[in-house]
Amino acid sequence: MEYQFSKSLDGFKSSAVREILKLTQGKSIISFAGGLPAEEFFPLDAVKDAVERVMASGKSALQYGLTEGYTPLRQSICNWMEQKGIHVTPNEMLITTGSQQAIDLLTRVYIDQDDVILVERPTYLAAIQVFQSRGARIISVDGDQDGMDLDDLKAKVAEYKPKMVYVIPTFSNPTGKVWNLERRKGLLSICREANILILEDDPYGELKFGDTEVYPSIFSLDEHPHNSCVVYTSTFSKTVAPALRTGWVMGDPQIIGNMTRAKQAADLHSSTLDQQTLHQLLEHFDLQGHIQLIRKHYEERMRLMAELLAEYNWPGVTWNEPKGGMFFWVELPESIDTTELMKVAVENGVAFVPGVSFYADRPKNNTMRLNYTFADNETMRLGMERLNRAITSALEKTNA
Amino acid sequence: MEYQFSKSLDGFKSSAVREILKLTQGKSIISFAGGLPAEEFFPLDAVKDAVERVMASGKSALQYGLTEGYTPLRQSICNWMEQKGIHVTPNEMLITTGSQQAIDLLTRVYIDQDDVILVERPTYLAAIQVFQSRGARIISVDGDQDGMDLDDLKAKVAEYKPKMVYVIPTFSNPTGKVWNLERRKGLLSICREANILILEDDPYGELKFGDTEVYPSIFSLDEHPHNSCVVYTSTFSKTVAPALRTGWVMGDPQIIGNMTRAKQAADLHSSTLDQQTLHQLLEHFDLQGHIQLIRKHYEERMRLMAELLAEYNWPGVTWNEPKGGMFFWVELPESIDTTELMKVAVENGVAFVPGVSFYADRPKNNTMRLNYTFADNETMRLGMERLNRAITSALEKTNA
Repeated sequence: MEYQFSKSLDGFKSSAVREILKLTQGKSIISFAGGLPAEEFFPLDAVKDAVERVMASGKSALQYGLTEGYTPLRQSICNWMEQKGIHVTPNEMLITTGSQQAIDLLTRVYIDQDDVILVERPTYLAAIQVFQSRGARIISVDGDQDGMDLDDLKAKVAEYKPKMVYVIPTFSNPTGKVWNLERRKGLLSICREANILILEDDPYGELKFGDTEVYPSIFSLDEHPHNSCVVYTSTFSKTVAPALRTGWVMGDPQIIGNMTRAKQAADLHSSTLDQQTLHQLLEHFDLQGHIQLIRKHYEERMRLMAELLAEYNWPGVTWNEPKGGMFFWVELPESIDTTELMKVAVENGVAFVPGVSFYADRPKNNTMRLNYTFADNETMRLGMERLNRAITSALEKTNA
Repeated sequence: MEYQFSKSLDGFKSSAVREILKLTQGKSIISFAGGLPAEEFFPLDAVKDAVERVMASGKSALQYGLTEGYTPLRQSICNWMEQKGIHVTPNEMLITTGSQQAIDLLTRVYIDQDDVILVERPTYLAAIQVFQSRGARIISVDGDQDGMDLDDLKAKVAEYKPKMVYVIPTFSNPTGKVWNLERRKGLLSICREANILILEDDPYGELKFGDTEVYPSIFSLDEHPHNSCVVYTSTFSKTVAPALRTGWVMGDPQIIGNMTRAKQAADLHSSTLDQQTLHQLLEHFDLQGHIQLIRKHYEERMRLMAELLAEYNWPGVTWNEPKGGMFFWVELPESIDTTELMKVAVENGVAFVPGVSFYADRPKNNTMRLNYTFADNETMRLGMERLNRAITSALEKTNA
C-alpha cells in the first residue's frame, strides 16, 4: 500500500512545544517550554466535589449531549461574562474542546485557500498551524509593547485585503504583552471599516497582576454579539484545569451557528462529563477567589524569574516584565540561534521554546519563550542556573 | 459587518438527527431518531469509582496531556484489541473525541478537493458531512444484506479511481446489516490491488446478538498495522457511555502520525479526565461482562420492535431483523416521502430519521431509520402506536 496523503499535509507541522513536551516527559529536564499551569494550585477538591455532584445527578449525565454544549454551562459562562461587561445569551456561544478548537472551527467556516490572515509578530504557534493547514496566507503585522502598530496594520490591510485578523491582545502568547486601549479601539475601527473579522483569543486575560489596570476585551468594545466584527474565545484551561479541556467561543449567532455545524462534523460534541463538571464547579466554587490566588502565586513566580534574569544579566539579552499571563519573551544577541541553543540547553537539563516557531514570516531566530508558571521556586532557580550555563557557553562561542 | 464565509460552508449542513434531537429535548416526543444507548444500563457506579481513582491520583491528573492520548489508556485498548485478534502497540493508535473525530482527522490528512470516496448506499450521515465539507466527491456503491456488491465496487473503482472507501461492515448505521466474510475479503483484495485506503468504522461491533457468528474486522484480515490499507476506528460511546466522548483509531504509524499532527491543530488533545477515567474503568471493571448485559437487553428490545412491526404489518412496508447494533431500516411504499411523514409523526409525538439523509447520492425517499436501544418496553409500545397512526394516515392519503 502506497499512501497518498492530502496536499495540505505540509500545513500540519508538529508543534515544537508539544514535541519538546514529549521529549521531557518523565525525564529530569526542567521545562520552561510548555504553557503549563502550576499543578499545586489546581482546585482538585472543587473538581472532585463537582464530579461527585454530576455522578449523583443520575445516569442521564452519561448520555450524548448537544453540539452547542451543555446548556446550563453555557448559561453559567454567560453570567461569568456579564461580570466583565459582556452581554451574551447561550445562543451566541459554542462550547469547544479548548479554545484551540474554536480557532480551528472558525478557520474552517470562514477561511478559504489563499485568503489572507493578519497576525501579530510573533504570535501563537498553534494558530499559525491551523491557518497554514487551511492554505491561508499568513502575514504578520509589526508591533511594540502596546500592541499592533496601527500604521503597519493599515498598510497591510490596504496591500493584502485580509479576511481576518488574529490577535491575543491581553498577555500575549508568546510575548506576554498587553495592548493599550488606543490600539484595541484602533484595530476595531480599521477592521470594521474594511469588513475584516477579528478573532480575539483570550486564554490568559484572567491571569492579571495588580488590580489597578483594566484591559477590556476588544469584543466588549464592539457592538456585540449581533453584527460584531469580533469573535471572542477563552478557556478554563488556565483558570480551572487543562484536563477538563473546555473552552468557549462567542460571536454573532450566524457565525456561531456555522461553527456549530462544523463542530457536528468534527466531533459531534465535547465531553459532557467535563462540561457538567465545570457547570457544577462554577455554581458551587468561588472561581473568582481561586483566580486571585493563582494571580498572586504567578506574580511571585514571574518576579523570581525577573530577578534571576536581572542577576544573570547576560550581555546583549533583553526581556520585558509581563503584567500577566504565563511567559517571558527573551531576545538574545543576533548571533545566537535559539534552535541551536535549545540543544545545548536540553543537554544541560533545561528546555524552552525557540522563538522561531512563533513567527508566521520574517522570523527572529534569536528569541525564546520562557514559561514561569509551572516550576516552583527551587526548580526555577535550578532551571535558570542550567539555562545560564547554556547561554553563557553560547555567548562565549560567538565571541570566540 | 458583512460576513464572508468559506466556500466550503455548504458542506457543513446540519445533521437531521441532531436537529431532531434538539427539537425533542425536554418535550414529550418519543424518539426513535437518535442513536442513543439505553441510559438505564450505563455503568454509573463503575464510572464513579473510576473517576474517584483518578481524583485520588493527585493534582497532576488535571494537567495537559499528550496529543496521542493518555498512554496507559492506549495500552489498555491494545490489550482489549488483542483479545479480538488485533495486534497493535500504542504508537499505532490515536485517542480521539469519539470516532467521529477519527473520520474527520483522516479526511483532513488524506483527502483533497475533488478526490473520490466510495461509500455504502445508504451510509452514516455524519461521515457524508465530513467528506462533503472537504469537497470530496462521494459515490455510493450498491449492496445487499451481505455487504457491498463487489461487482458494482469493481466497476466504480475502475470508473472513478477513488482514493478511499468508507464502510461500517458490522451492524451498519443506518441499515443494521453485517457483511459476510467473502465481502470483507473481497473489499480488501480489490482495495489493496487498486491502492485504495479503507476506513473501517466500527462503533457497533460489540453489540452483537447471539454468540455463534463471528465477524472479524477488515483491519484484522489485512496485514496490520504496518502497511495496512485499512484504518480502523471504534469508540466507548456505545459500550461504556457517550458522555466520556472517547474513541480511538488504529493504522499504519505514518497515517496515525499525520492524524496526530492534524489533531494538534484541531484541539491539542481530548479530555484527559475522560481518558484517565476510561483507563481506570478498563483496569477495574468487567467491561466484557457489561457488554454481555447490554447485548441481552438490546436484543430483547430489538425483538419487541420486530414483533410490533410484524403486528402493525403496514402494507408494502419491509424491514430486516438486525443481528446487532442499534437500528431497524424500514422501507415504505415509494409513494411515501418519509421527510413529509416525519412532520406527521412529530405531530403525533414520535420521531425517527428520514432515510434520505443517509444517501450520498440516488436517495430513496421512502426509507426511515428506527432506533430500538433507547426506549424501554412501555415507551417503545407507545411510540410504535404513534408511528402507526402517522404511517396509517400517510398510507390512506396516498391510496385516496
